[in-house]
Amino acid sequence: MAKISGAPNRLSSSDASDTQIADVQGRADPRQLAINKVGICDIRHPVSIAQRSGGHQATVATFGMYVNLPHEFKGTHMSRFVQILNAHEHQITLESFKQMLTEMTERLESDNGHIEMSFPYFIDKFAPVTREKGVMDYEVCFIGDRIDGQTQMHVRVKVPVTTLCPCSKDISKYGAHNQRSLITLEVRADEFFWAEELIEMAESEGSCELFGILKRIDEKVVTERAYENPKFVEDVVRDIAIRLNDDERFRRYRVESENFESIHNHSAYAMIEHDKDAANS
Amino acid sequence: MAKISGAPNRLSSSDASDTQIADVQGRADPRQLAINKVGICDIRHPVSIAQRSGGHQATVATFGMYVNLPHEFKGTHMSRFVQILNAHEHQITLESFKQMLTEMTERLESDNGHIEMSFPYFIDKFAPVTREKGVMDYEVCFIGDRIDGQTQMHVRVKVPVTTLCPCSKDISKYGAHNQRSLITLEVRADEFFWAEELIEMAESEGSCELFGILKRIDEKVVTERAYENPKFVEDVVRDIAIRLNDDERFRRYRVESENFESIHNHSAYAMIEHDKDAANS
Amino acid sequence: MAKISGAPNRLSSSDASDTQIADVQGRADPRQLAINKVGICDIRHPVSIAQRSGGHQATVATFGMYVNLPHEFKGTHMSRFVQILNAHEHQITLESFKQMLTEMTERLESDNGHIEMSFPYFIDKFAPVTREKGVMDYEVCFIGDRIDGQTQMHVRVKVPVTTLCPCSKDISKYGAHNQRSLITLEVRADEFFWAEELIEMAESEGSCELFGILKRIDEKVVTERAYENPKFVEDVVRDIAIRLNDDERFRRYRVESENFESIHNHSAYAMIEHDKDAANS
Amino acid sequence: MAKISGAPNRLSSSDASDTQIADVQGRADPRQLAINKVGICDIRHPVSIAQRSGGHQATVATFGMYVNLPHEFKGTHMSRFVQILNAHEHQITLESFKQMLTEMTERLESDNGHIEMSFPYFIDKFAPVTREKGVMDYEVCFIGDRIDGQTQMHVRVKVPVTTLCPCSKDISKYGAHNQRSLITLEVRADEFFWAEELIEMAESEGSCELFGILKRIDEKVVTERAYENPKFVEDVVRDIAIRLNDDERFRRYRVESENFESIHNHSAYAMIEHDKDAANS
Repeated sequence: MAKISGAPNRLSSSDASDTQIADVQGRADPRQLAINKVGICDIRHPVSIAQRSGGHQATVATFGMYVNLPHEFKGTHMSRFVQILNAHEHQITLESFKQMLTEMTERLESDNGHIEMSFPYFIDKFAPVTREKGVMDYEVCFIGDRIDGQTQMHVRVKVPVTTLCPCSKDISKYGAHNQRSLITLEVRADEFFWAEELIEMAESEGSCELFGILKRIDEKVVTERAYENPKFVEDVVRDIAIRLNDDERFRRYRVESENFESIHNHSAYAMIEHDKDAANS
Repeated sequence: MAKISGAPNRLSSSDASDTQIADVQGRADPRQLAINKVGICDIRHPVSIAQRSGGHQATVATFGMYVNLPHEFKGTHMSRFVQILNAHEHQITLESFKQMLTEMTERLESDNGHIEMSFPYFIDKFAPVTREKGVMDYEVCFIGDRIDGQTQMHVRVKVPVTTLCPCSKDISKYGAHNQRSLITLEVRADEFFWAEELIEMAESEGSCELFGILKRIDEKVVTERAYENPKFVEDVVRDIAIRLNDDERFRRYRVESENFESIHNHSAYAMIEHDKDAANS
Repeated sequence: MAKISGAPNRLSSSDASDTQIADVQGRADPRQLAINKVGICDIRHPVSIAQRSGGHQATVATFGMYVNLPHEFKGTHMSRFVQILNAHEHQITLESFKQMLTEMTERLESDNGHIEMSFPYFIDKFAPVTREKGVMDYEVCFIGDRIDGQTQMHVRVKVPVTTLCPCSKDISKYGAHNQRSLITLEVRADEFFWAEELIEMAESEGSCELFGILKRIDEKVVTERAYENPKFVEDVVRDIAIRLNDDERFRRYRVESENFESIHNHSAYAMIEHDKDAANS
Repeated sequence: MAKISGAPNRLSSSDASDTQIADVQGRADPRQLAINKVGICDIRHPVSIAQRSGGHQATVATFGMYVNLPHEFKGTHMSRFVQILNAHEHQITLESFKQMLTEMTERLESDNGHIEMSFPYFIDKFAPVTREKGVMDYEVCFIGDRIDGQTQMHVRVKVPVTTLCPCSKDISKYGAHNQRSLITLEVRADEFFWAEELIEMAESEGSCELFGILKRIDEKVVTERAYENPKFVEDVVRDIAIRLNDDERFRRYRVESENFESIHNHSAYAMIEHDKDAANS
């Protein structure tokens, strides 16, 4: 990371110590009201994410980091969140993310902790015919909850696809309106899996997946593929839900699809959520 | 509203009828999967909102409108949502919003319905000393759920205030960092109340409220008021929670405060949520 | 507009007067540096806009208001901008907008002034076959410059349309990728015209225009219309430029089109700008 | 970067070749209208940026890439922009950025080219007293124009600082409103310089610079520093302009400052722009 050395009129060091300064946050609070979440948000940080294909990928994440605050304290110590973040910037996996969550909860002397880390994630994709290498970007979010000593993880991916309208195709002499649609898929992660698996699942269930680069012969194939595979937003979320229902690793999920309609100035939307264990009980 | 008459090369009418066209959405679906929410979102519409001070105020709302879809239908009829919206554009109150929710749920032949309507809301405020009239804008959201024949309403307001840091004031020779903070307050609305009441409650619990216009003598007063009334984000949410706890009309609430810190490039955040009836049971 | 009466712990009036307070902004400045633009921005205000179809439409505008500041003054008086805005909230036309610009420049004792007022604008549109009435929203911006006693106006409209890819149609067995595209059209307004005229011009030159509501028989017609009328972003801006070139009222323009590509996760973009008088000289 | 292998129902390769496919874009166009800019935008790509402190920093950039299109061609070849981007993803400096611009203009057979590359850039900063290491994020943008064989570069930085109001301080018994302010500084880059130099210049001219982490003793120092150094937005842009005027490397610049006012729900803004060579001629 770049360094800035102090310019002449910028702040300079002194030898005062933080311990000589009043700790207003640490004072007793008389209001008898615990706070559910307190912390920092909208903080950007460079991170390095483990990839299924091996190695790590450098990207930039936006964090929210929170703990609960018992009723007896006036405030939390916000700078500690930043210290924990600074200590963990490299090579994040689901495992090391959990460690950061545990460390934060202990360091802030709290019962509960919550971290959200959202970042663009890049995957090399090859055009379907020419095999030209392109890059696709997806938004991935790791969400961790630490509650009474137990950690629970969720992973969310946002995956853009093409959807082509079955009604428009069915009723028209030729053509069919289609558009970019954004699939949002969030699952509870009890067992290990790769974000790439969720992304592939979502891409498989649009009318066609997107690519970073397409030559003309590729464009012909994706155009025809979408036309052969029309889907409403309702179809997209159902077909993904079927795949999630069949995979024992995913006990709880929510799948959404939003069409940025090419014939309207608003969106069409559908969502299915399911908790297999709640449904079984 | 303005009208556009058809330009020469724009689409012209025909005498075909919609009933002659295949209804793809209405077909049977074999996947045995109900959809929790299906509908339209990101649709803007002019609305007119009843004011506590009397009369109505014209503004622009962004809507999300959804119903559930039983497993046996392939899709919903998206155009009906728009028809319902078009029929209700004027003079919306909490009451007429509930009627729109009921009508939507019935018209779409669904068990459950959900509408969110978010809009900027303007209130005349008078500068504290000069009484110069200014205008403040707030973001207000009406949220309605219709579940198995029962309607439940929530109202959310976003209220910007000043917060001045108690720690910074306490430890510094002079001055104290302060900043704009955004309070988000959402309550379940079992009994009638005005959004203005929530806004006043939030404004009363920052270090100082904001104004659309301040002359110098007003600026002096708000500067000193904030300095005399330092608050962490933790203090803001606790002080609002105390007021909500004391008001029997509000059975469930969530209050958040986010400081756009003037000494950092990230935010400080706190949240309290409470369900009085769950806590009592 | 709603009114808030002072809650008990909110700020109360005093009888001090602003004129007894030091005017820091009005002090002399020794740096010998004039400021090109100084003022307020991101301020929202309810407005009422004259419509071509008659009457006015209520909407919400976001303003930026600026003047130049001669080198001899330390600062401008920000509250005066807000006062001017408050005095002009109703029934804005291009004419009254110009008056506000002149008044602002005079009131702030400046040579130059600049106002931008951006707002959603709603137009009733009728579905092409069923004539079902829907509402379309567009973003319109009035831009005024007052320079050395002369006023110049620009109007900008953002118009969403469908574009259908000519290449995709040409090379594919069936279907063609299409998507929502946003046309941005800004013209210098020397002579009077309606924003509706620019909007219609833009809508006429996409592959198809958008509608707020479409029944199935309408959807058939717009699907086929787009397929019969394929256009690249390059075609869209050229075809609009041709129409602007033919209209003597528009002496200077810029037209942009951005396709939110349905086969990629990025946009395709094209822009033409032209100043007829510069070209003739 | 991660790789996705083809899932069973995803698109598979064929041995067709792109050259057998009609080139619709390359066809002749009869409209006699050249296009000023055509290309792709809103495309995200991982990049690696050379740092003044040595080495490179990995981050994520959003690109816009455009060329002009002579009147005789129907369209440009959008996939070539992506190919150029894919070939240049690593270790970008101002020099290699210029090469990419030249290569793009040549490859697209155009006279003019334009690239914008905007990215978050992270710099280690040390708290003023404790020397605790934090990270600050800034938005940096490289802007390149290739016109008739000549290349011109601009660099833009967005730098958040604290500003404390001189008027509020002067007229109040104690305290002064302050807030985060965003300085935007864009300069023409005829000679080499580091983005870090612009960032330091901007940070030196707020009331106080921001830090990623501050312990209490640091917070005391920055609070007092801001109080001792009150500045209007007008002061901020003038003081930066003076420094830019004194530096012969910067021939043309624009400096803006926007205060997210802590006493209002809108911003205060100032801007100075200057072209030394135009002023001298």
